[in-house]
Amino acid sequence: MAVETRRDFIKAAGLVTGGLMVLGITGCATGTKQDSHDNDNTSHTPSTTDPGSMDWQEMDRHHREGIEAFPAATEGKGNQLLPYTMDGDVKVFELTCTEIEWETQPGKKVRAMAYNGTVPGPVIRVTEGDKVRIIVKNEMKESTAVHWHGLRLPNNMDGVPFITQDPIPPGGSFTYEFVAKPAGTHMYHSHHNSTEQVGLGLLGAFIIDPKDPAAEPAYDREYLIVLNDGTHGYTINGKSFPATEPLVAKKGERVRIRFMNQGVMYHPMHLHGFAFEVFARDGYPLPQPFLCDTLSIAPGERWDAIVVADEPGVWAFHCHILSHAESRMGMYGMVTALIVEE
Amino acid sequence: MAVETRRDFIKAAGLVTGGLMVLGITGCATGTKQDSHDNDNTSHTPSTTDPGSMDWQEMDRHHREGIEAFPAATEGKGNQLLPYTMDGDVKVFELTCTEIEWETQPGKKVRAMAYNGTVPGPVIRVTEGDKVRIIVKNEMKESTAVHWHGLRLPNNMDGVPFITQDPIPPGGSFTYEFVAKPAGTHMYHSHHNSTEQVGLGLLGAFIIDPKDPAAEPAYDREYLIVLNDGTHGYTINGKSFPATEPLVAKKGERVRIRFMNQGVMYHPMHLHGFAFEVFARDGYPLPQPFLCDTLSIAPGERWDAIVVADEPGVWAFHCHILSHAESRMGMYGMVTALIVEE
Amino acid sequence: MAVETRRDFIKAAGLVTGGLMVLGITGCATGTKQDSHDNDNTSHTPSTTDPGSMDWQEMDRHHREGIEAFPAATEGKGNQLLPYTMDGDVKVFELTCTEIEWETQPGKKVRAMAYNGTVPGPVIRVTEGDKVRIIVKNEMKESTAVHWHGLRLPNNMDGVPFITQDPIPPGGSFTYEFVAKPAGTHMYHSHHNSTEQVGLGLLGAFIIDPKDPAAEPAYDREYLIVLNDGTHGYTINGKSFPATEPLVAKKGERVRIRFMNQGVMYHPMHLHGFAFEVFARDGYPLPQPFLCDTLSIAPGERWDAIVVADEPGVWAFHCHILSHAESRMGMYGMVTALIVEE
Repeated sequence: MAVETRRDFIKAAGLVTGGLMVLGITGCATGTKQDSHDNDNTSHTPSTTDPGSMDWQEMDRHHREGIEAFPAATEGKGNQLLPYTMDGDVKVFELTCTEIEWETQPGKKVRAMAYNGTVPGPVIRVTEGDKVRIIVKNEMKESTAVHWHGLRLPNNMDGVPFITQDPIPPGGSFTYEFVAKPAGTHMYHSHHNSTEQVGLGLLGAFIIDPKDPAAEPAYDREYLIVLNDGTHGYTINGKSFPATEPLVAKKGERVRIRFMNQGVMYHPMHLHGFAFEVFARDGYPLPQPFLCDTLSIAPGERWDAIVVADEPGVWAFHCHILSHAESRMGMYGMVTALIVEE
Repeated sequence: MAVETRRDFIKAAGLVTGGLMVLGITGCATGTKQDSHDNDNTSHTPSTTDPGSMDWQEMDRHHREGIEAFPAATEGKGNQLLPYTMDGDVKVFELTCTEIEWETQPGKKVRAMAYNGTVPGPVIRVTEGDKVRIIVKNEMKESTAVHWHGLRLPNNMDGVPFITQDPIPPGGSFTYEFVAKPAGTHMYHSHHNSTEQVGLGLLGAFIIDPKDPAAEPAYDREYLIVLNDGTHGYTINGKSFPATEPLVAKKGERVRIRFMNQGVMYHPMHLHGFAFEVFARDGYPLPQPFLCDTLSIAPGERWDAIVVADEPGVWAFHCHILSHAESRMGMYGMVTALIVEE
Repeated sequence: MAVETRRDFIKAAGLVTGGLMVLGITGCATGTKQDSHDNDNTSHTPSTTDPGSMDWQEMDRHHREGIEAFPAATEGKGNQLLPYTMDGDVKVFELTCTEIEWETQPGKKVRAMAYNGTVPGPVIRVTEGDKVRIIVKNEMKESTAVHWHGLRLPNNMDGVPFITQDPIPPGGSFTYEFVAKPAGTHMYHSHHNSTEQVGLGLLGAFIIDPKDPAAEPAYDREYLIVLNDGTHGYTINGKSFPATEPLVAKKGERVRIRFMNQGVMYHPMHLHGFAFEVFARDGYPLPQPFLCDTLSIAPGERWDAIVVADEPGVWAFHCHILSHAESRMGMYGMVTALIVEE
């Protein structure tokens, strides 16, 4: 999905004729004072004003600038599918751990630890029962190890230093090999100095498709929502609003969302205007799906849900711990949108 | 429900003959020292003593004073049913946002932002399928907008500034209009500078009764539990213990409780002595109800439960994050009681 | 279960021939630098180095030392079954509250409040419908009272000072008497100055076996996981890693785990390599069990789950809020292991 600007997005969605504001049809905002952004000639340069003392026009300007910047371009993109080679009947993947700079939002570059240079790392995706080999190389200045969170595998492949293996030292490597199971949305992450290493970005999605596709509900598109909340701030898929990427669907499509929380805080994710049909927890099908609009994702949990995108528009989608999503300066952090095109 | 004092309440419940303490029948507390509150002639004026250095008699006195004050009278009461007028087949509601002082517990007046002058704002209650118009006027010093949390409506009615509408500036207004759906316990709140505005009180309940009442379990009474945890402290329905209002039921009644969390922290609500029969999540009926006595409410979530009030007495009902409910100075914050009358 | 050292444990499990490291069979860690613990002659004395400036060899050494110390011996052990005497058809238990020192990990002695001298207090275990009398003596310097969390009993036995009884003053006692119900995993704890008293250790498990054992799934062994997070730090059953006790099972056994959270924070407990079959919430059987590998336990909640121990090895089992489990100095706090013997 190549996305340049929010405006292009909205345009692509066939929702804009003369700007985002015309989306309001029935409603009508009227002000006895002139609305700030009609006569606002001030620059968009971030203000140095104390947020506590901003006047309302300045507050609104900051809010508007964030929305207009969305989705903002940044360097680097996580969650890309990891290619593999075959060795006999074994799928062979490579992950290299390095220390990098990572741009979480325009101009904000943070120190990161990354698998293959992105945060989150690449998506490992295989089919239930596949033989998998993953060669992990450590090019960082400290040791590490990889835990395959949710997978059921031989103990010596579990990735816990000094319990199931030696840590992988700087310059070293370790080869993991196992049969991929069970099916579901799982994850991988560092299990060494993990509060810091996972917080800095050593994390990714590990998806195991079921052998029998009929084991899952039907869907037209799918999206990953990987949450983190370490020193990079509140992020979705390694980016903070307005650099988060929106989810896009055509009206009527069934959108599958795979949630996973790689952070250390709980995040109740709220999608405006729709219900989640939640059908799997930690990859395991629920005995019966349930409906909700706010889905709490605890650290380590994964949840799978379907959204039936039956109403067009740009729908806010964010953590409902409001302090993870908005301040006096506008929206930030764990905020994105579901854009439903006509 | 007009309530003057805790003692009247208990009396009304037919539970007291000579004081709350006679409730203890089987149990027997005996002290080798004289129990502090039998010979306590000191005033009830809050002590200036450092809580860390209080002796036990003083601690007990503070605990007792809190309980004896419950339910304490304060100015202002939220959650009152919002009247409407009809315009053809449209139910027309009005909400006015103002900045006020709000009393959360006796003598504690806090700066608040309020819909129609109360925290929570008034309850909007309609039937599934009703045509609804809500005129929101902003008489505050900063912009705002209202999000109808849980409702499924046209995108331009969703209340997110710069995405679905302009913010409503000071002195301005905005008219929302939509068909009310889906049935269930929902909520409304500010979606502009929301951490601050919702924290300060711009929040309320939005209840949509199902067209077919048979869609819900039977109940004799219902109560709202609206949680918040911003600068007002830990509150239930806008008040902190001992100013929280108890729930009252007659023995054998089925009491419906509608929980909603408008705060930014999780709150596991524990009711002593009963089970919650939880039957709906975010307004959606669960595929199968479940039982529990501690129900975690995440920010943005709503839960509906039935309590069968089969055991008389005054039952503590509080957030089980104990630091939201009790200190060395006694109970405070997110504490109330279910009083079951014979 | 008498456990001396981690190594004995591993040996007992038939997993070690020449050290824990040989567990790694398929995987192979290779380093271009010599791995730190092969040539590490430095003492195991805790370093005074600033953790932020440690080199990787020192970090790894600290990680290794923690694992090698597990399970570390400490003074005192909670969760021991409380004996009772019969008075007619009544089971009579005694709990005495005292202020003690409690060792949470080797050398870390903390101020505690305890029932019968341990943290957690003893396990009270009876059968549904049993008549139970519990004599609580207070030998502490402040008042207290005991709440039987999850039990359904007469109001005057509920243990809330100034609502259902007088607090039990220093030197005093109180006799609780009731019929034990409902069946399930419940708990007891102080309900007076409770943030502090429960945080300091006045807590325990109250298990009511169902009259009809067929009401529960079959299992071969059972374990308690009592969580706390007050001034004692992050603890499982009153101890912090490496002094936590591992769970042990033989291959193929069905292990029942009873989780309860007596703390003030949420803890998502993650077991490596297995699924929890979760079948009861707050003691009440779920309408349908569900599977997961990360189970969030909110303060006040209890959850019952079965793990089918079908894969041998030493499996990490910890809170997935990583900052409750690991730092640059290695694992600590809410960490233990499930050891599955061949």
